Amino acid sequence: MTKKQLGPTTHLFPMPTMLVAVKTGEGTANILTIAWGGIVGGEPPMMALSIGGSHYSSAFIEEEGNFTVNIPRSDQVAGADYCGMVSGRQDPDKPGTCGWTMAPSRVISSPIIADCPLNFECRVIRKMDAAEGGFYLVEILETHVDEALLADGKLIDALALDPLIFTPDGYYHKLGERVGRGWDAGNALKRR
Amino acid sequence: MTKKQLGPTTHLFPMPTMLVAVKTGEGTANILTIAWGGIVGGEPPMMALSIGGSHYSSAFIEEEGNFTVNIPRSDQVAGADYCGMVSGRQDPDKPGTCGWTMAPSRVISSPIIADCPLNFECRVIRKMDAAEGGFYLVEILETHVDEALLADGKLIDALALDPLIFTPDGYYHKLGERVGRGWDAGNALKRR
Repeated sequence: MTKKQLGPTTHLFPMPTMLVAVKTGEGTANILTIAWGGIVGGEPPMMALSIGGSHYSSAFIEEEGNFTVNIPRSDQVAGADYCGMVSGRQDPDKPGTCGWTMAPSRVISSPIIADCPLNFECRVIRKMDAAEGGFYLVEILETHVDEALLADGKLIDALALDPLIFTPDGYYHKLGERVGRGWDAGNALKRR
Repeated sequence: MTKKQLGPTTHLFPMPTMLVAVKTGEGTANILTIAWGGIVGGEPPMMALSIGGSHYSSAFIEEEGNFTVNIPRSDQVAGADYCGMVSGRQDPDKPGTCGWTMAPSRVISSPIIADCPLNFECRVIRKMDAAEGGFYLVEILETHVDEALLADGKLIDALALDPLIFTPDGYYHKLGERVGRGWDAGNALKRR
């Protein structure tokens, strides 16, 4: 295999497709699609998310101090992409345009997207400086999931969830077939 | 759709499978597999990665101030899982056990896994406090990619890369079929 050097890039594969929803008024919300972010802690559960400061949502996030992260199914790709293409300044009712219904969160003021199978209620812990990435560090306060996707009342079946995946070549994908199980596939290499 | 509340969780779908490699001696390295992390900035490219402080690699990361992040193909699942199951304290030559060759980085002291199709050279910018997730904030200084995966000398084809994906139900997956294109699929919802 011959390697080529591309310099510093953000070409991590795969990325989650995350719909960030923030309250923008009584019963209204804006949705912003991002792919830069991930889990960064477990106790308590925390995420880091890169949301540029110039977005329509930014001032509302500062005001509310919270937002929800909603994971779309692969068949919700049109809405997911739309919410990343069009600013809330152009379309202040993106949920309506996408045909989605917002529902109240349990703990925070920003609502969840009821149509998405998985939702996280997030409280902003800290906004990092631009020099340090300019990302939000958030604590996950609640998780909502489509009951039909739960295997034993707790575990979310990934293939049944059918999450929309983004890759840095600019395409959205479905999740593919299972190729192994965690803390199991590696047993093949254990010395006996 | 009836939703169930699971409380605070880390059930983000999907997650990347990241092989963190750090120099542990002349010509030797340890590999640690993680799934918690993601891109958090673009200028310069930055990642946040959760690496518990009690790992064999931790002291070496502190000493070197750098590590590489290596993205395995789906057929490298056994080695990827093994490096997450077994500590370097038990097996100080995980690369050898996995049948992988380490190669020098261009900028940093920690080597890349030559067998992985995609590698990032990362310099530690900051270690966040445990209360803030206890994760590493790193700058990506260089990207190495299998030349055969480049579409136009720059863009990495995601399906050709065939990255190993982890999901919080404990399974590894392949990347599935394309369902849309970014900044395009959303046009269907634009008002004309």
